[in-house]
Amino acid sequence: MDTIVSRHNPLFKQLHRLAGQRRERLRERRTLLDGAHLLQSALDAGWLPERVIVTPQGQANHEIDALLQRAQAPVTLLDPALFAELSELPSPTGVLALVSWPQPPAPRRDGLCLLLDGVQDPGNVGTILRTAAAAGVAQVLLSAGCADVWSPKVLRAGMGAHFLLEIIERADLPAFAARFDGPLAVTLLEGAVDLYRARLDGNLALALGAEGQGVSAELAAHATLRLRIPMAPGVESLNVGAAAAICLYERVRQMGIATAL
Amino acid sequence: MDTIVSRHNPLFKQLHRLAGQRRERLRERRTLLDGAHLLQSALDAGWLPERVIVTPQGQANHEIDALLQRAQAPVTLLDPALFAELSELPSPTGVLALVSWPQPPAPRRDGLCLLLDGVQDPGNVGTILRTAAAAGVAQVLLSAGCADVWSPKVLRAGMGAHFLLEIIERADLPAFAARFDGPLAVTLLEGAVDLYRARLDGNLALALGAEGQGVSAELAAHATLRLRIPMAPGVESLNVGAAAAICLYERVRQMGIATAL
Repeated sequence: MDTIVSRHNPLFKQLHRLAGQRRERLRERRTLLDGAHLLQSALDAGWLPERVIVTPQGQANHEIDALLQRAQAPVTLLDPALFAELSELPSPTGVLALVSWPQPPAPRRDGLCLLLDGVQDPGNVGTILRTAAAAGVAQVLLSAGCADVWSPKVLRAGMGAHFLLEIIERADLPAFAARFDGPLAVTLLEGAVDLYRARLDGNLALALGAEGQGVSAELAAHATLRLRIPMAPGVESLNVGAAAAICLYERVRQMGIATAL
Repeated sequence: MDTIVSRHNPLFKQLHRLAGQRRERLRERRTLLDGAHLLQSALDAGWLPERVIVTPQGQANHEIDALLQRAQAPVTLLDPALFAELSELPSPTGVLALVSWPQPPAPRRDGLCLLLDGVQDPGNVGTILRTAAAAGVAQVLLSAGCADVWSPKVLRAGMGAHFLLEIIERADLPAFAARFDGPLAVTLLEGAVDLYRARLDGNLALALGAEGQGVSAELAAHATLRLRIPMAPGVESLNVGAAAAICLYERVRQMGIATAL
């Protein structure tokens, strides 16, 4: 097993770049999974890490040792102080996995797809991916203006959703919408259709934009379903993660009813 | 108009304590509203700030000047460097309002109430308050283990919801549940009732707990409705803010249908 004790070690320098720089992640198509839970979710979904990095304390942990056995990847032991430089967790669990993400698939033309247009907050993006996976979304497409989906913060908030979804980042959303075989739904404050009077149970592309701005005019031009989420007087808007949950789960409800019938 | 240029000024020291320390906020029952949007939401809801603090730049801003006129409170001019010490915003808007929050009301026994049990993340608590206000929740009760509802972070994520809701913090949730005249609903991974088969349109107290742990055993003992949010295979759980949005808006949907009939 390799042991790294110097920050001048080339592997450490690579890991440090991947932890901190989107450009490097995109160039290598690699990222770091921080913590035992993310590694376990990745393994559960059939992902194979290229390398696992542990602290001596992490290595001694029973749960992490079991993950190391499953991962069947080279293991590198890392000095705890250096490890802390790679981890954003307030109390690092002592395990990081180096993974490359799959080539993005072709854009779908049917099923349930989620389009994020300029959603910049990493916590929101991660939470939305988590909800999307739970709601049975097949593919998530993110515009260039969204938070970096493979960043440590988005991975953390996603809680493993990344491994269950098809993800296409820096996607051309209007081009996707133009080819999609079903309604493109957008949520608007002055939307024309009450969410609960809309049919959401067939092919569906749901687009969510940045709070305050909504989706781009170019994408909105493709919208065939302009949804209004009812809100009590005095309330201007919802958090984009809440709006995503409300719309996606109204779809779940309608699908459940459709299945039962 | 007072002008503060020294960090030894007693008012600045008071503001600094209120910005940073829950204990001081509780002792004074006062907090700071950071930014023009929160101040406007407070004024719209009829709250009267005790004092408004601006930077010279903030004072010169048209929108903020209009808020100062509406607020009819003493205005203090604060050196921008000192102002930045009071603000968590990445780019402070240059206005802060000192407010005292109302005496907490008596716990309700009917209507729609939301119980948060040990929800620690400030962003989650604020987002949930925002969703709750939109969904027509009358009263929110937070256990002692929740994030400080009057902290700058929760206020920021709440986006003005604080001024539309009755809020009771450090509440005795089991005692509330024992007296509530309607079902206490909790969400559980192994919940017995599919959310979409539950009746949620009468008096309703909905309880949400910390992710991973759920509500306390003592509170769960009062539950009369154990809801299960359907989730796709491989997904363990939802973010608590997403779960809140899904459950509260299923209530909104049912109420809308009830109203229409």
